Amino acid sequence: MNTSEFRRRGKEMVDYVANYMEGIEGRQVYPDVEPGYLRPLIPDSAPQEPDTFEDIINDIEKIIMPGVTHWHSPYFFAYFPTASSYPAMLADMLCGAIGCIGFSWAASPACTELETVMMDWLGKMLELPKAFLTEKAGEGGGVIQGSASEATLVALLAARTKVIHRLQAASPELTQAAIMEKLVAYSSDQAHSSVERAGLIGGVKLKAIPSDGNFAMRASALQEALERDRAAGLIPFFVSSAALVAPGNKEDMWLHVDAAYAGSAFICPEFRHLLNGVEFADSFNFNPHKWLLVNFDCSAMWVKKRSDLTGAFRLDPTYLKHSHQDSGKKPAFNIFLTDGPFHVSFQHWQIPLGRRFRSLKMWFVFRMYGVKGLQAYIRKHVQLSHEFESLVLQDPRFEICAKVTLGLVCFRLKGSNKVNEALLQRINSARKIHLVPCHLRDKFVLRFAICSRTVESAHVQRAWEHIKELAADVLRAEKE
Amino acid sequence: MNTSEFRRRGKEMVDYVANYMEGIEGRQVYPDVEPGYLRPLIPDSAPQEPDTFEDIINDIEKIIMPGVTHWHSPYFFAYFPTASSYPAMLADMLCGAIGCIGFSWAASPACTELETVMMDWLGKMLELPKAFLTEKAGEGGGVIQGSASEATLVALLAARTKVIHRLQAASPELTQAAIMEKLVAYSSDQAHSSVERAGLIGGVKLKAIPSDGNFAMRASALQEALERDRAAGLIPFFVSSAALVAPGNKEDMWLHVDAAYAGSAFICPEFRHLLNGVEFADSFNFNPHKWLLVNFDCSAMWVKKRSDLTGAFRLDPTYLKHSHQDSGKKPAFNIFLTDGPFHVSFQHWQIPLGRRFRSLKMWFVFRMYGVKGLQAYIRKHVQLSHEFESLVLQDPRFEICAKVTLGLVCFRLKGSNKVNEALLQRINSARKIHLVPCHLRDKFVLRFAICSRTVESAHVQRAWEHIKELAADVLRAEKE
Ligand SMILES: Cc1ncc(COP(=O)(O)O)c(C=O)c1O
Ligand SMILES: Cc1ncc(COP(=O)(O)O)c(C=O)c1O
Repeated sequence: MNTSEFRRRGKEMVDYVANYMEGIEGRQVYPDVEPGYLRPLIPDSAPQEPDTFEDIINDIEKIIMPGVTHWHSPYFFAYFPTASSYPAMLADMLCGAIGCIGFSWAASPACTELETVMMDWLGKMLELPKAFLTEKAGEGGGVIQGSASEATLVALLAARTKVIHRLQAASPELTQAAIMEKLVAYSSDQAHSSVERAGLIGGVKLKAIPSDGNFAMRASALQEALERDRAAGLIPFFVSSAALVAPGNKEDMWLHVDAAYAGSAFICPEFRHLLNGVEFADSFNFNPHKWLLVNFDCSAMWVKKRSDLTGAFRLDPTYLKHSHQDSGKKPAFNIFLTDGPFHVSFQHWQIPLGRRFRSLKMWFVFRMYGVKGLQAYIRKHVQLSHEFESLVLQDPRFEICAKVTLGLVCFRLKGSNKVNEALLQRINSARKIHLVPCHLRDKFVLRFAICSRTVESAHVQRAWEHIKELAADVLRAEKE
Repeated sequence: MNTSEFRRRGKEMVDYVANYMEGIEGRQVYPDVEPGYLRPLIPDSAPQEPDTFEDIINDIEKIIMPGVTHWHSPYFFAYFPTASSYPAMLADMLCGAIGCIGFSWAASPACTELETVMMDWLGKMLELPKAFLTEKAGEGGGVIQGSASEATLVALLAARTKVIHRLQAASPELTQAAIMEKLVAYSSDQAHSSVERAGLIGGVKLKAIPSDGNFAMRASALQEALERDRAAGLIPFFVSSAALVAPGNKEDMWLHVDAAYAGSAFICPEFRHLLNGVEFADSFNFNPHKWLLVNFDCSAMWVKKRSDLTGAFRLDPTYLKHSHQDSGKKPAFNIFLTDGPFHVSFQHWQIPLGRRFRSLKMWFVFRMYGVKGLQAYIRKHVQLSHEFESLVLQDPRFEICAKVTLGLVCFRLKGSNKVNEALLQRINSARKIHLVPCHLRDKFVLRFAICSRTVESAHVQRAWEHIKELAADVLRAEKE
């Protein structure tokens, strides 16, 4: 495909995308296909000679779309939102064309530099403590990770390296294995499984701390666990938490705050209090790719001390001598380390070596929405979830199962888990809307998450009418 | 931005991208900017009110482009190639629009299913042993990772879990820490630093095995190391290698083959022999995002036994009971595990939870080039590197430093490292072409990598003329 064909096909694709978005409401939100549907529809090996673009574009509707779960349909209320906006898509086109791999400053200065500035912009929108910003050439800074899971892992590894160094400095005879055997990380019993996975990868114990009535980590329970474990000779070193826990006995612990979904809301002053206490954290992370209109992947992570992060990955032991300078002296045999004197080289902040020019998406979105536009977007979603909440509350057959603070409503039929499972089953079989369940304590609960950029009050109302109808069917069937 | 504005702006962006590609040869390949250039050019916080699209598009040329290293310029010969093609860009537009997060089958069946089929297509192009394919519902299969570093890490973690389970099954009293302390992974002393990093993350020792004259791991040296380490009570468990090593004493070891760059060439029969021995590997990985025209990120990884991989991450211990079925019984409280009965759920194959619809890029590229087109592309690059090699060989002042097999030529002026450093310095200061160095043994070497999709013989010739001129300057300056 030459450039002039790309001009033509690119524009056709823009129209295809625009049509898809315009018509998405008319598509069935969850597909009908059975597992294994796709393989018989396409050849079992790649063609020797080229296919035409027409062949491919036709196959999208024939082969791909029938198997797509439409995350951006206004009838999609499952999981969490995943961000989608036109400015981000435009930025991604540019990102693909520049196609630089930004592992070091020299590999593409604009890629590294725009990222540090965008992370500062975003940090300021959240009113993060200055210690997390790069701006004033302090010790902190932000980085775009591919996912919250990677951010948690990177934080845990940094904490692990730090505690090992500290203990070995005090007692040089201690082996890494002897220390690792005693390390304990903590998270809430409601935490996302990515924390458990980070513990598994890092080879350390992870303990779940009982949560309170709002499903947040109970500070007193954490305190008790720390004391118990220390008395037993273990070494607490890392806490990952969504809400903020009391900073008592913090000195030797790394506190990581994972607000993957909720974080976007903190750009609104009325929700910012949910982030209070972040000043005690060593690292903070949330996913603009969930709820801030920046298409996947864009997980924003800040640390108070860059050298903690880079220290966990740094293969060059001289990094310890340059605690506020990422670059320093490098072994010249590593071709990726031909770095300039810039103090940030993002390859040392992350698991992969390669990285795309992802800050372009942030730049386009922040500028084309403006802070006010982004706030309005968050507020609209929160308002829609409250609207759904009040619909549920008006119906005495239903109950709300957790306080509604942002865009998620957890609800159920008063009654058995079985009847709620039956309701969900009917909802998802009807395929008019899409929901997933969760368990809260031992209750089977339906989650109604405001997800789509284009969801309006009318969609929420229609979804509720539909749920009520199916609930009536379920309750009738139960009686029979 | 509404859909009709997106139609307009999207088409403008297509033209911008097309113009960028058409004009890239005229842009200076490496930028002039100094570290910190960008921050003063933009506001220090996000605008409250929206900026216009015109503002942004104008800023691209003013602010971004002056700081871009143009990886797709035909004068870019640095690092390794990073893939770029129009079909991949078109696919990425679609991927952004569908915007599904494919962690499980149910989260978007087409996303999981197309990936399994594309990994089979690619596996067949490489003539991988059938054991690595999903097709026949065997135990193996392929997955798209974000990077080769992640693939290596995932393989090492799978190997670690496997050896721990095996040893604990034999001696239940052994703790994980007691085993981990003795685990040893091996790579060539020329291996990419990602292996070292994987060892660091996994908390195991990594030993470098001396390489042979072709900079590949010496099988006899590996054998000796294994014997020495076993005799010392250590537990060898993992080898990562670019070329294939002898499979002796293989039974308890995981063999991972990382052909990040070279792998793409194996679709050509004349290079396939470089992959001989892959039948002994447990996992194999290469980056179509380097040299197979599929834009970043797309790192292709295959394993012989899926359950080894998923076992390393599986938080649900029942996975052991379902060794050829990823899904099985899941704890219902994890909202991401609302999976159908499909046997592949890619969240268990990787570090992140979220994942984009990346197989679309493979589908578009494989179909629009056809296998023959892809082979022709590889061959052209190899031929250009041989062309450069013969230019170097014609000049008695220069020497070739490693056998040229694919698209990389390592060369230098006969003489001191200092004179070669001076030459590279002049080359990169002139900014007509861009190269990076490496060290081979103790020699400072210049690397000339065929990178751009659009590089032609004329560019290589011009680059060589330019290098020769600068070499003459350097040699003259040295005499003075
Ligand atoms: C609190 C929390 N942490 C982590 C994740 C994992 O996200 P990612 O796909 O970015 O790893 C999620 C996803 O929903 C989450 O809600
Ligand atoms: C052999 C090898 N392994 C791993 C990598 C790292 O690649 P990635 O950015 O995909 O992690 C490279 C990059 O050039 C490589 O050449």
